[in-house]
Formats: sequence, C-alpha cells, structure tokens
Amino acid sequence: MGRVQGLLTDLYELTMAAGYFQAGKAGQRATFELSLRRLPAHRSYVLAAGLEQAIEYLLELKFTPEGIEYLKGLPVFSRAPAAFFDCLREFRFTGDVWAVEEGTPLFAGEPVLRVSAPLLEAQIPETFLLSTMTFQTLIATKASRMVEAAGGRGVIEFGTRRAHTPQAGTLGARAAYIGGCIGTSNVEAGYRFHIPVFGTAAHSWTLAFDSEAEAFARLQELLGENTVYLVDTYELETGVENAAAVEGSFWGIRLDSGDFLAESRVARRILDRAGCRQARIMASGDLNEHRIAELTAAGAPIDCFGVGTELATSADAPSMGSIYKLVEIERKGRLRGAAKFSPDKSTLPGAKQIFRFRDHDVVGLAEENFPGATPLLVPVMHAGARLGERIPLGQIRQQAQRRLAEIPSACRRLEDPAAFPVLLSERLQALAAEVRSAELKTLDSKRA
Amino acid sequence: MGRVQGLLTDLYELTMAAGYFQAGKAGQRATFELSLRRLPAHRSYVLAAGLEQAIEYLLELKFTPEGIEYLKGLPVFSRAPAAFFDCLREFRFTGDVWAVEEGTPLFAGEPVLRVSAPLLEAQIPETFLLSTMTFQTLIATKASRMVEAAGGRGVIEFGTRRAHTPQAGTLGARAAYIGGCIGTSNVEAGYRFHIPVFGTAAHSWTLAFDSEAEAFARLQELLGENTVYLVDTYELETGVENAAAVEGSFWGIRLDSGDFLAESRVARRILDRAGCRQARIMASGDLNEHRIAELTAAGAPIDCFGVGTELATSADAPSMGSIYKLVEIERKGRLRGAAKFSPDKSTLPGAKQIFRFRDHDVVGLAEENFPGATPLLVPVMHAGARLGERIPLGQIRQQAQRRLAEIPSACRRLEDPAAFPVLLSERLQALAAEVRSAELKTLDSKRA
Repeated sequence: MGRVQGLLTDLYELTMAAGYFQAGKAGQRATFELSLRRLPAHRSYVLAAGLEQAIEYLLELKFTPEGIEYLKGLPVFSRAPAAFFDCLREFRFTGDVWAVEEGTPLFAGEPVLRVSAPLLEAQIPETFLLSTMTFQTLIATKASRMVEAAGGRGVIEFGTRRAHTPQAGTLGARAAYIGGCIGTSNVEAGYRFHIPVFGTAAHSWTLAFDSEAEAFARLQELLGENTVYLVDTYELETGVENAAAVEGSFWGIRLDSGDFLAESRVARRILDRAGCRQARIMASGDLNEHRIAELTAAGAPIDCFGVGTELATSADAPSMGSIYKLVEIERKGRLRGAAKFSPDKSTLPGAKQIFRFRDHDVVGLAEENFPGATPLLVPVMHAGARLGERIPLGQIRQQAQRRLAEIPSACRRLEDPAAFPVLLSERLQALAAEVRSAELKTLDSKRA
Repeated sequence: MGRVQGLLTDLYELTMAAGYFQAGKAGQRATFELSLRRLPAHRSYVLAAGLEQAIEYLLELKFTPEGIEYLKGLPVFSRAPAAFFDCLREFRFTGDVWAVEEGTPLFAGEPVLRVSAPLLEAQIPETFLLSTMTFQTLIATKASRMVEAAGGRGVIEFGTRRAHTPQAGTLGARAAYIGGCIGTSNVEAGYRFHIPVFGTAAHSWTLAFDSEAEAFARLQELLGENTVYLVDTYELETGVENAAAVEGSFWGIRLDSGDFLAESRVARRILDRAGCRQARIMASGDLNEHRIAELTAAGAPIDCFGVGTELATSADAPSMGSIYKLVEIERKGRLRGAAKFSPDKSTLPGAKQIFRFRDHDVVGLAEENFPGATPLLVPVMHAGARLGERIPLGQIRQQAQRRLAEIPSACRRLEDPAAFPVLLSERLQALAAEVRSAELKTLDSKRA
C-alpha cells in the first residue's frame, strides 16, 4: 500500500474538502455509509470482502508534499485558503468505522461500512473505499457461485492475466479465496496473504523441448508428486499417454481446451488403463459457474477446475451499484439525519445497523435492538486506530462458508435466485419521513 | 511501481523457470509474442495501450530476498537446485522488446508486443504483461467508442470508484485519456500522467448545508468560474434556479440521474431565461456509448458527458482473449519457429511484424518487407534498456485520434462494425506449414 496516498481519489472529494474547510465545516461530525444500492446482475446476494484493504488505507492515508504542491497548482484550488493545504499536510484519519465482517453474505439495500468522522476526513476516502470494497465483493461473490457449482470439487483462481491490472489480480485472488477457492496461481497473493498457490507448466514448456515426452520427463524431475502435465499442446491422447509413461508419481493432468466432458472421459480411461488411477484431472479454460455445473451434473471425471477470465473480471457482472452517502451531519451541535430524495436515487438517513434473523434481515437504526437477531456491523476502527487483531484470511474463508450455508439454498441458485427479505425498521422509516418532510418545507419556503 | 516484484506472476512461470534452469535451457534464446487472439465482444478493433507500464515493469523486475525465501519454502520448489534461487537473486531482464506504439488501432490475430530474451527471462513476465496491456487496451478502446459517439462533445472519465481496485482506476484513467477522453476525475492519474482533472461537488456537499442555495453559494466562493453545480439533489427545476441565482460566473451544471434528454432541455431553458447562456450542461450517470449516441442524435443540449462504470470496467466487454506465446526457440544453435497446433487454440510460429496498408494489414515475418506498408512493431527495448524517450501521454493521445481516423469508419461503428482485413504473408504461412509438418513427424515417430 506504500504508494497509495491522498491523491488517489476523485477531484471533487478534494474540492469539497477545501470547501468544507473554507466554510468552517471541516470539523463538523458526519457519518457516511457505504451500501449496496443494487446487487450485481444475476445475483441475489453478495459476499462482503475487501474490508482489510479499506482499513489499511484509512490507517495509511496521507498527502505527500509533492501531492500538495500539485494540488496548489490546479485552477480549481486557486482560491483555496493556504491553511487548507496545511490541513492536508497534517491529515490523518481519526474517525470511527463500523463494518460487516468479510465473508458475510449481504443483500440489496444493506450498508456494509459506516464511517463517522470530521466531515473532511469522512469525505476524502469515498472513492478508494468504494472501489476496493466493491471489487473484492464482486470477486468473492463470483467465486462462491463457482464453488457452489463445483459441488465439492476444488476451484482454483487462475485469472491474474485477465484481471484489470496485475494488482487487481492479487486482490482478486484474495477475494476468490474468501469465496471458497482452494488457492490461486498468483504467487504475490500467496506470499502476501498466505493463500495456497497452484500451477506447474504452460504450453510453452512443452514447446521448448524437442518432444513432449522429454518436456514431461524434465517436469517430473523437478516437481515430483506435484507434477501436473498439460496434455493438449499437440494431441490429447498422445499427451495423456506421454504423461502416464513418465517414471515417478505425479499429481495429475490438465486439460486446457476442447470438450471437457468428452476429453476428461478419454483421459480418465487412458490413465486408468495405464495404472494411474490416483492421477487427478484438472480442467481450465473458458469456465464459468454454468459450465462447471453442467460438467458436474454430467458426471465428468474432473477433480478440479481452474478458472481465470470469468472469475477475475466477474465477467457477467463486472460492476455493481454501491454508494457512499452522507447519512448524518452535525447541525447546531447535534447529529441529524441526512438523505437525498431525488426520484430515482433516494437514500435513507441515519446511522444504520443490519439485524440478521434466520430467514430475513431488518435494516434499522444503529441504536435499535432486536432480540434474537445478530447485528452485522461491528466496530473495526476507533479514533483512527484499528480495533482488535487482523482476522487471518483462512478464518475469514471458513466463516464465509459457514455463513453462506446459513442463507436459504434458493438464494444461492445459479439461475433466477430467490431474494432474501430485507425489511426496514419502523424507526428508520419514521426518521426517513421526518427528514423528507423537513426537506419539503425548505423547498416550499424557497418557492414562496 | 515500487512494490511490483517478480512474485507478481503465475506460479507456473516460476516453476517453468526453475525447470528451464535445471534442464540447462534458461539461457536459450527465445521469442514470445503477446497477441490478440480474439477481439473483445462487440468490437472490430482495439486501441493499443499499456506499453509504458509494460516497459517500466521490465525495467524494474526483480526478486526480493523475502520473496525468494518464500519460494524456497513452497513444496513445488523442494527439488529446485539452490543455484536457481541465486539466479533469481541476480535476475534482471536483459532482452529486446518490439511493440506497437500506444494509440494504434489493432485487429484480431495481430501481435502487439514481442519479447526476445533468454528463455527464463522471457517466460516470467507473461502474466504481468498480459494483464497490464490487455486492461489498458480494453479501456482505451471503450473510451474511443464513447468519444466517437459524443461527436465532438467532451467525454470525461469518472470511473475510479467502479474500477477493479483504485489502482486500476488510475491506469484506466490513463487509458481513457489515450482513447480520447478530455480528462479524468482521478487526481492521482492527473498527478502521475499530467491528465486534466475534472470535478467539483457531490450530493453530500449539498446535504451538508442548511439549504441548496447556501451550498451553491459556498461552492462558487471557492471555485469561481470553475464551478459546476450538481442540480438534482432535491428537485431539478429548483436546483437549476438556485444555480442560476448565485452571484458570479460558473462553468455550468451537472445532471446525475433521470431522463437526460428531457432534463437537459428543461435545464437549458431555465438557464437561458436566467441569462446564463454561457453555462454548460454536463450529464453523468449510467452512460455508455449507445446512450451517448442517442442523446447526441436527439440533439440533447448536453455539452459534456461524464462516464464511470461502463468505461472503467469496459462493462460490455470486460476481457479479451490476448495470449503470450512462444514463437521461436534456439535449438542446436539457431532460432527455430515454435507453435501450438491443438484444434481450437493454434498459434503461428516465428517473430512477426504487422504491415499496415491503407485498407488492410498483412501479418508477416519480422524480416519481411512490403513496399508501401508501414511496419507497426518498433524496437522499444534493447538488452534490457529502454530505447528512445518516453512518449508524452498527450502525444500518444493525439496519435490515437489520427490513427483511429485512418481506419474505415465502418470499423468504428458502434453496432455491428465491419472487420478490417488482416492477411497472412506467404512466408508466414509457409513457416507455419513447415513447423506443423515437423511436429506431425515427431508425433508419428512416437506412435510407431
């Protein structure tokens, strides 16, 4: 995260910061919520991920002297008071953060993160928080669908080359692991996040030797029982025969193209005849949850799926409508609900909490209490410092599997999934009506 | 780029590297090409981008001591010779690179980058190069479609919050600028790449004041003639009236939701009646090239489009089938063509060049020469060092506009675009046949 600094945000966060400063509002207490306005296409839940990177960002957020000089030179800052730039020089995030733990399924309309801080500090992080949390949530969700489809067979994340930058590949690998993948091909992700890493050889390996048999023998020499032979560089049958003929144990073979159902059966037969019953078959190439489900349903003798493009880009739903909105602001010494009521993009005022029951959620005000329900937002930062220990990724992953199993299976269906009921508490609805009516009065008084 | 290191790659690149080392092949000269197997969905061209980041990566690529220790501890490396890790410790890229300049339109099947280096050095960068170049190419292409649709109106990149990580937002802003956007909201991108930055205030600004009128007045105080009023926090008409009523000059207003055609007309009428004929109208929110084209065709009085989600994720085509394949390898002292001939994923052998004619391209061997054609791949690195100066981004952008204008307009159509003919030279076809026939002989001799 070393290179990330205050400039990695939208310009308007910084012009607004300057404006709040100039208007004497920079220190006014404000609460913003990051919530899921719309779920990604084809989904009835998302699996929350990315909180750890959000916390790291808030802990490290600062403005470098060069960054501040750059801002001073921009025309939009030509009228900004000099003291504003001093304020940026001293900037650090001192707020409180509540959030839903990573690996928790969430539904449309629910808040995932709540920031309470002086207005200037709460505004600037909007862009970064939206991007880092939404992206990992998309990938963790996509992974969970593939893992569901694989019905107990392993799914490995192979998509860094297709990710939207290599850095996205690394964080995507982390999210995919949370979503239930058994590992990744991304070594940096393995190193940084202690994720199991997979992979042995590409077609270029086979091409670099005088024959496929030689290429395979050399691979086995190096990798021993971890060897996976990629058998389709030239011809499937010959490839599998060459693999089975190498001396020494091996993990299995990989099919990277073609009709996986037919080819896995052919490969299985050749392996079994050659006495390699223990050898596993991995399939990779243009897979998604639907293809995986078909292959699984057809009983394809595939032990493990490697998925790249579709997972690393969440190809059928590469974005979702997450928002970061002001929900409370200090006015005349106390926090008041704030909301936006334009016809197609309304928001709900007030600091909120999700109360999870077995078969529905209630979104209510943070101070409410519903017996029998689990409140999902928990405090993760106080006064700019992290609360508690970093949760190990393996533990987040296990928690995700457990919490996913707790939502109705109809919500996890790949096609046409059922919605999970999310209700609004009476007090939240009352606050929304109250704030709305105050706004209408203001508008009316202006028209008069 | 400081944090990027050798581990940011797929594991198999490193296991193959170890294998090449062990087999005495690490220093064998090899050529790999990064090429466009399939264009992104709905496209008949792509606009090449990302080369600068590819070069920076190759210049900086190294393995840290901690990274090497991590590798040593992985089971797949338990048999790797100790000297391999010494080799990683000393690793630097010493190869030659030819590439198509950024801002050049390319077509299906064409190579965009060619790496010639000792086998080990050419193999390891595969994952990073594919990801960084493919991503920027996708975004530059998407941007060029929106700019085409806008017919001379400005298009501004607003998508960092929707990008697949904030870092992808920054590089996406760079690519969007190459594709013809007039600027970005991403301040880090403005700082690093000297891209014009845009943006003034969000809904939260308006909500943070007691009235919209006060919020607008305070914004104008700060931003003067650069002020853009976001007018739809409460109600469009009142919002535009409040904007027009503020003392002092301003840039214009922004519509962020609703029916842009109807609303831009209403807003224009209110602005004109209030004597603000110079005030511009910007629209942002759920725009893509098709919506922009509709609004432009309908004569909507919109001066400028802000685009986020669809651009930052290349939403209708979030990936494309780019590949990085071995095309030549040293055998018995000389470079020989290498290729893969499996039924659905064949590659062509030999170091290649694209020869661009006015109305078609020829992909031929690098040493060929076609009078009247421009060879598109140019040398950009030699012996691990950059050749020539870094091209300023503004110059790349201008070049992109010029080169896009040179391809037939039918190829730039938003719907059902025409293909640009790409032919293979006779010598390339002959080499492919020759390599194929040699492979078949090898396979036959194995069967015998």
